[in-house]
Amino acid sequence: MSSEIDRVYRACLVIIGNEILSGSTQDANMAFLGEQLNEIGICLDEARVVPDVPGRIISTINEVRAKFDYVFTTGGIGPTHDDITSQCVADAFSVDLILHPDAYKSMTDFYGEEKLNDARLRMAHVPDGATLIENDISIAPGYRIENVYVMAGVPKIMQSMFSKLAPTLTGGKPMISKTISSEAKEGDIAAGLGEIQRAFSDVDIGSYPFMGRGGTGVRIVMRSTNEINLEQCCLKVSKLVKEYCT
Amino acid sequence: MSSEIDRVYRACLVIIGNEILSGSTQDANMAFLGEQLNEIGICLDEARVVPDVPGRIISTINEVRAKFDYVFTTGGIGPTHDDITSQCVADAFSVDLILHPDAYKSMTDFYGEEKLNDARLRMAHVPDGATLIENDISIAPGYRIENVYVMAGVPKIMQSMFSKLAPTLTGGKPMISKTISSEAKEGDIAAGLGEIQRAFSDVDIGSYPFMGRGGTGVRIVMRSTNEINLEQCCLKVSKLVKEYCT
Repeated sequence: MSSEIDRVYRACLVIIGNEILSGSTQDANMAFLGEQLNEIGICLDEARVVPDVPGRIISTINEVRAKFDYVFTTGGIGPTHDDITSQCVADAFSVDLILHPDAYKSMTDFYGEEKLNDARLRMAHVPDGATLIENDISIAPGYRIENVYVMAGVPKIMQSMFSKLAPTLTGGKPMISKTISSEAKEGDIAAGLGEIQRAFSDVDIGSYPFMGRGGTGVRIVMRSTNEINLEQCCLKVSKLVKEYCT
Repeated sequence: MSSEIDRVYRACLVIIGNEILSGSTQDANMAFLGEQLNEIGICLDEARVVPDVPGRIISTINEVRAKFDYVFTTGGIGPTHDDITSQCVADAFSVDLILHPDAYKSMTDFYGEEKLNDARLRMAHVPDGATLIENDISIAPGYRIENVYVMAGVPKIMQSMFSKLAPTLTGGKPMISKTISSEAKEGDIAAGLGEIQRAFSDVDIGSYPFMGRGGTGVRIVMRSTNEINLEQCCLKVSKLVKEYCT
């Protein structure tokens, strides 16, 4: 009998911003979110990076919110003209963008009437029906609407928002991972590694060659929700790579 | 009269690999490719990260190769069981995966008969009709089939492959960018920045708050194919942020 915990929960990350695509900013949110979601039994199963173009953001959000259990967005919720995520999310859900009373109060308390200009007030607007996601760094909130979680692009703020919303997420079994790094050559261990993968169908074995100052080699990452099989698999891989280390 | 050089060439990057989504590897190819493509007048207009699942890779490649001028893929062309990109690309194009004679010769010369095992031979297989993309680091090639460029995931190898294929790409006007970093607060400059953006419709102005050891502030990135307008825009932004620096 399968229970809720055997279900695989799948998430998609939508990274919104020209700066990521132009290379002027290196994304740091995807790896963080991938790791954190694993720990609560949610698989980051796809990511999309889209430019600051309303039609593209809206169609992407509507496509992925229908396909995945969870959608996380990062970027585009600040006070400037290029921060168009909230209007796009409202449009995707066909709801109005409204001034959220709690966000308005926090921002009035923080800035005072004088400094709370129109630009900053934009950050207190959310799609109608959204629930705020607080953070410890900035006064501007993220929010959730249905299965879509809208977060800031600045990594520190995004991480704080995620720490607040994580306890509200339902996941399955946490994914555990083991890594073995070796000087063995990928081409030498490939056949043996393929055999081990066939023997352990519930372990996902990835093989990643590396080259750097420390030399060249391969990093084998094994991931599973089954800790016992993961341990067994790890022993086999460990034995295999030792055979091929010169 | 508009010429070929006024056309905007758009590219999509497909990053293939569970390791990127699980957070065990931080992608380093997207920012590199975004910057490099800008220089030759091609706009990286979307990126997708997909897991090592054949159906997902095939459908993504088929969707984006129809939508974009260029598609670049990274990852999944090594010798191990999880390297499934080439079979997926062949399937996406409904062609066979064939042993490429030039790749076979290079690999035989390099490894000799004895070390050229079945795993390594996989790397000499490409979709029928593909043209090889060499690199200076590894003997295993990437390849091009129609508008799809298949490259390695290891950044050094990917970068070498890109340097070989870049001269074969047709682009429009190069995108030039200027960056101004300032301690001004985003919420203070937002209205003025919006005005400047409206005045310079052919300059893309992005505003990115930062917080780090060096303090907090905002980085304004201006991008355009029109160098004169970019300079003018940059002067206006420079003047604006100075007004709000305390």
